[in-house]
Amino acid sequence: MSEFDVKDHPHRRYNPLTGDWVLVSPHRAKRPWQGQVEAPATDNVPHYDGSCFLCPGNKRITGDINPNYSKPYVFTNDFAALHQDTPVASRNDDGLFVLESERGTSRVVCYSPDHSLTMPELSTEQIAAVIHEWIQQYGELSQHYAWVQVFENKGAINGCSNPHPHGQIWACSSVPTLPARTDLAQQQYLAQHGKNLLLTYVERELADGARTVVQNEHWLVVVPYWASWPFETLLLPKAHVTRMDELSEQQQAALADILKQITIRYDNLFQCAFPYSMGWHVAPYTPQYQAHEARTHWQLHCHFYPPLLRSATVKKFMVGYEMMAETQRDMTPEQAAERLRQQSPIHYKSVPK
Amino acid sequence: MSEFDVKDHPHRRYNPLTGDWVLVSPHRAKRPWQGQVEAPATDNVPHYDGSCFLCPGNKRITGDINPNYSKPYVFTNDFAALHQDTPVASRNDDGLFVLESERGTSRVVCYSPDHSLTMPELSTEQIAAVIHEWIQQYGELSQHYAWVQVFENKGAINGCSNPHPHGQIWACSSVPTLPARTDLAQQQYLAQHGKNLLLTYVERELADGARTVVQNEHWLVVVPYWASWPFETLLLPKAHVTRMDELSEQQQAALADILKQITIRYDNLFQCAFPYSMGWHVAPYTPQYQAHEARTHWQLHCHFYPPLLRSATVKKFMVGYEMMAETQRDMTPEQAAERLRQQSPIHYKSVPK
Ligand SMILES: O=P(O)(O)O[C@H]1O[C@H](CO)[C@@H](O)[C@H](O)[C@H]1O
Ligand SMILES: O=P(O)(O)O[C@H]1O[C@H](CO)[C@@H](O)[C@H](O)[C@H]1O
Repeated sequence: MSEFDVKDHPHRRYNPLTGDWVLVSPHRAKRPWQGQVEAPATDNVPHYDGSCFLCPGNKRITGDINPNYSKPYVFTNDFAALHQDTPVASRNDDGLFVLESERGTSRVVCYSPDHSLTMPELSTEQIAAVIHEWIQQYGELSQHYAWVQVFENKGAINGCSNPHPHGQIWACSSVPTLPARTDLAQQQYLAQHGKNLLLTYVERELADGARTVVQNEHWLVVVPYWASWPFETLLLPKAHVTRMDELSEQQQAALADILKQITIRYDNLFQCAFPYSMGWHVAPYTPQYQAHEARTHWQLHCHFYPPLLRSATVKKFMVGYEMMAETQRDMTPEQAAERLRQQSPIHYKSVPK
Repeated sequence: MSEFDVKDHPHRRYNPLTGDWVLVSPHRAKRPWQGQVEAPATDNVPHYDGSCFLCPGNKRITGDINPNYSKPYVFTNDFAALHQDTPVASRNDDGLFVLESERGTSRVVCYSPDHSLTMPELSTEQIAAVIHEWIQQYGELSQHYAWVQVFENKGAINGCSNPHPHGQIWACSSVPTLPARTDLAQQQYLAQHGKNLLLTYVERELADGARTVVQNEHWLVVVPYWASWPFETLLLPKAHVTRMDELSEQQQAALADILKQITIRYDNLFQCAFPYSMGWHVAPYTPQYQAHEARTHWQLHCHFYPPLLRSATVKKFMVGYEMMAETQRDMTPEQAAERLRQQSPIHYKSVPK
């Protein structure tokens, strides 16, 4: 019998943040694709679009008019999934019909007045202004809610209905399913190993390098050992940080730099505005975590989940086996990291043709 | 303050099979959609396609030639995600780098030689032949593997690369993440409540009716109280059944009938070949469940996860908040059930225009 080879043989890897496993079938990338092909993202987006709900000076569907903003602009989503005044209710019949009313809010964060730009095309100063805005929002929303979810959906293929550079913030009273799982996992890891889960992971990845995509003085981007999406990455501070307001000015400036670096590599991979969902996980704002000592098990981190698999038009479908049994991937995380690492640090659009 | 109204106010519901919550924002279906629109599934599929890898008599990519089959035809996937002879290996460094090699197989089940048909267009006899084949496959594969995942990906929008009516069976040595969670949940429910989780659920849904889509003597289809996908359904036997080979001939015939009934309603909803991922969960074939008494906590069931939300071309995107925090839905399960229940029991294609 031959020896096990991680690049050739099907195996499962364990995600210590969620308790999920992922089935890795490295040889599967070779299969031919006869399925659906997506429309590529267009490069011809104007600087201003009169019909865009996010451009400065435009009227939104509610009749509100956006100011002529020049810095990041935040407003409450016109079709928010959560409301601050929902009446309280709960039901639990036999553990089968369990319902809890939920309060919250949902905001839109416009990164720039320029309709045509995306994160990698913003200057590091402009990205730093977005980070500054996130910190402000965490500060304000954490007064009222236990969970503040900062995220961005980018690309039509990824459910984003508007190319204007923007993200969202949904805040709510309960800690949602996935962060609750991550919270527990980090807590149990600390109890069991006496170490912070993700801080230990950062040390190990820095020493190894096989999954590193980019890094700077304060931050590391890896394709995690347990990645689900083909080019999924995890962005981590090198020092212990539980929430975004703990970041020093140097760490914030370095964060702007690393966000630009990773999104440039993404765009260069398939020479397109690379679609993804990006989101931050920070220690929840529940009362028991008010003291820093109570949340030492936490390490702030940011996930990038991009849907593309083979090209700008062929994505990975998380269907069938993935929905019923377990996530499955078609190349190893190390192979994905290598391809991202090889990309130029210069955005393909700014290279003279 | 107003009273809580389930049809109006954001709330969370608990999925007792997975431990996940889902955020329900019923008012959100009203928001306008400016995002990506999918190509509708075409109705003009020929009975035979010379370039199809699944049609009788055709040559596959491996050079193998399909027989001139008339009943369901099963073969090993030419690009299987799992192999039966993978060398054994495992790794666990600090609970962070955890890997296990995995053995298994992956098969394709052609439902019919006719390239143009889909499940709702097959006769109940033809569907019964597919069920018979599933039972055969469970019998054979359970000799070697702990988990046998029967599923179907339908529709290009849902990652299916070929319209020829077919499903898949992936079998593997470990119980995958999601069924392992469902196994545990059913076990704990029995321990805590002294009742079978899904059997109790069936009784309660039969008494209520608000989430019922269709039923016959032996089977019930509901939009589960905790549904994630807009038109998700759960297909359940009315009696206690842990695995498919326990089904009597009457239950098998009634299953063929109910599969036809639910898929006809799906197609009629948006007048298209309704895309979905469908999959069965049965008690795992692990040694400890060999005796029937050891698996009384189990109830066999079948999930339908369809991606469409508003029309044949607008789907629900499970991105951003859903990927980072928690699944979110835009109407209540009761509203979805009502719309499906209202559909005609006659397939739209067989109604004279
Ligand atoms: O095997 P297929 O149909 O080519 O591929 C499809 O189903 C598989 C199993 O659900 C998924 O892993 C793939 O992402 C999907 O494209
Ligand atoms: O709020 P948007 O961008 O209109 O909508 C998008 O993001 C939401 C939050 O991730 C998702 O629930 C929607 O399915 C998606 O289409």
